[in-house]
Amino acid sequence: MKKAIIIIALFLICNLALAQFAGVMRGQKEEPLPEGFKPASTNTFISQYPAVNAATRQAMFRVVAPAAQIVQVDLCGKKYNMTKDEKGVWTCVSDPQIVGFHYYAILIDSVAVMDRGSEAYFGSNWESAGIEIPEGPEGDYYRFNKNIPHGQIRSIDYWSEINGKERHINVYVPADYEKETKKKYPVLYLVHGWGEDENGWSIQGHTANIMDGLIAAGKAVPMIIVMPSGDIKTNSDVRTASGDISQIYINDLIPFIDKTFRTYTDKEHRAMAGLSRGGFQTCMTVLPNLDKFAWMGTFSGFFGFRGNNTIETAYNGAFKDPEVFNKQIKLFYMSIGTEERMGAKEAADQLINHGIKNIVYFESQGTAHEWLTWRRSLYDFAPRIFK
Amino acid sequence: MKKAIIIIALFLICNLALAQFAGVMRGQKEEPLPEGFKPASTNTFISQYPAVNAATRQAMFRVVAPAAQIVQVDLCGKKYNMTKDEKGVWTCVSDPQIVGFHYYAILIDSVAVMDRGSEAYFGSNWESAGIEIPEGPEGDYYRFNKNIPHGQIRSIDYWSEINGKERHINVYVPADYEKETKKKYPVLYLVHGWGEDENGWSIQGHTANIMDGLIAAGKAVPMIIVMPSGDIKTNSDVRTASGDISQIYINDLIPFIDKTFRTYTDKEHRAMAGLSRGGFQTCMTVLPNLDKFAWMGTFSGFFGFRGNNTIETAYNGAFKDPEVFNKQIKLFYMSIGTEERMGAKEAADQLINHGIKNIVYFESQGTAHEWLTWRRSLYDFAPRIFK
Repeated sequence: MKKAIIIIALFLICNLALAQFAGVMRGQKEEPLPEGFKPASTNTFISQYPAVNAATRQAMFRVVAPAAQIVQVDLCGKKYNMTKDEKGVWTCVSDPQIVGFHYYAILIDSVAVMDRGSEAYFGSNWESAGIEIPEGPEGDYYRFNKNIPHGQIRSIDYWSEINGKERHINVYVPADYEKETKKKYPVLYLVHGWGEDENGWSIQGHTANIMDGLIAAGKAVPMIIVMPSGDIKTNSDVRTASGDISQIYINDLIPFIDKTFRTYTDKEHRAMAGLSRGGFQTCMTVLPNLDKFAWMGTFSGFFGFRGNNTIETAYNGAFKDPEVFNKQIKLFYMSIGTEERMGAKEAADQLINHGIKNIVYFESQGTAHEWLTWRRSLYDFAPRIFK
Repeated sequence: MKKAIIIIALFLICNLALAQFAGVMRGQKEEPLPEGFKPASTNTFISQYPAVNAATRQAMFRVVAPAAQIVQVDLCGKKYNMTKDEKGVWTCVSDPQIVGFHYYAILIDSVAVMDRGSEAYFGSNWESAGIEIPEGPEGDYYRFNKNIPHGQIRSIDYWSEINGKERHINVYVPADYEKETKKKYPVLYLVHGWGEDENGWSIQGHTANIMDGLIAAGKAVPMIIVMPSGDIKTNSDVRTASGDISQIYINDLIPFIDKTFRTYTDKEHRAMAGLSRGGFQTCMTVLPNLDKFAWMGTFSGFFGFRGNNTIETAYNGAFKDPEVFNKQIKLFYMSIGTEERMGAKEAADQLINHGIKNIVYFESQGTAHEWLTWRRSLYDFAPRIFK
């Protein structure tokens, strides 16, 4: 019995030591949330804050920091000063936000840190806090639907000779992939944006929910979606990002996927799309390799005619002869959020006026350079390919 | 051209806005690391700090916080005061650490936050920083080996009627799973510890690398490993953790797995193991269901004879008649780190003296209540089951 008591005591000590970090969250349970506010869907499961008011689209933040001098929230380009109560608990309520997913930071005496109430969302090259301002019922397309078959996201490390290192990818396979053991599938390569990583599309983007819904409804054909990293890590101490990511996609990743999954390997069954910098990487990868892709999409990310480049010279003259381009690419999809004003409409019009066909231009109403724009883009883009 | 310039300008503004959070990391590139230190393998790919000295097993931390009053590192039960230089950069070097993975926190004016140099590791119910003190070449078994076939970790949401909610699981499938399309596999259910989540075993635990190596070497039989959450989320505003996790495992999860994967469904082909609280959950799930499991493991987590319980009464008398128990369970595996002193040896001896057979007791030399103990436990446990 004595030993049993020792076991229990050590277990408790150990867990209490671990639990010291969790104090903030325990404190949160004491007070009910203000009227109209609910915990954000992006929180850790135990956290009540940040909280969101779906009607006003405001977010409320809470930080326990009795010894701090200034605590702020940095959300969508605005710093909010938080107010401290007598217990050292800081709170603030934001302005109404654009719907969708936003990265944010807490500033403790000017140091930007992650809010411990949030789950981690890799963005801007760090594990950032994020908050979802709910879109309402129209956002059902990216939420889990228990009444339809579900695909899987497969987490895989593959060896890249070019990188000299294993690289992590996530691969969505549709619900029927394992039942139809002879069936081959088309493949969409889907790339994240600057400062994000290969998990962005499956976590912030809800790719599996979106595709499960589209496929179950017969709107999109069952397809494999490969979500790689758009950055290059190295084994050196400094770990600089360098090298040509397109070469890794073309020469290491595509052969690995075609070897590992049951894919169609012709260009009519291969697409690539990306958001922001990933849209640029899509152009940099697809345009010099028109024999390998027939479908492409840039979501908030076509940076075509820059520097000294014109529509004739951009991407080594890929658009110079519209007839050549039109024979190769069945869809050149460009999308943008109406609140980000990045000139995609003008670029699309320029291409159309130049004679480039098969362009689809899509605007996400009321959204910025953020994940809701890209969820909507995928939802609109995926039904258009491989048909 | 004017529009092209606007596009570029907006792109830059956007990225600069995002990049403000990344300032700390950019600053890090300016100075070389001290002699003998390398970036921890647990860092984000762009971060040089925290850095680890493999020879001395010391960790060096760095935080940019010009306006903070006190900055500390909370690592393995000790708080280290950091020292500020004239630029407002705080640094400190830790005592020599036990090898393996440790959670830690940075304290900015007493607020425990995540170090932005680290990737996020869910522990103590928050997205925590973590640091790996390298084990040296003997740790090769949990690192990626490019010369062997690789399995996959599948990320799946399944519907739980008991929970009334979708639940996320990770499922390891061995390398030959997709090639041997008629073959059936045994299943190990593997549970994380208190305050961690269903990603712990695949991320902190490196389950895929460990199993790929064991299977390629012929040491373990190819098996499916299901890694569920040991917590229960609800849809209520408060999101309390409640209900009986064992019922979810037995009545929702196992049927889902047997329906979704090519499994053997008899008890000889089903095992369960867990670490810390997951070891306790293993006992709570397996011992009342001896018709469903033939193999079990508790890594740093057998809390058998507590309260008023004796070996005769614990777990509703599961051990009371050793002969009954011995017929049902082919392996009762118990492990512990030598630095955690949680009394597992005494408990194992009690069970053996009581007549319980098929007990294997394993000690991880020089490790504490931490992930290296559990990686080693899995590496030692997996070859012993399904044979």
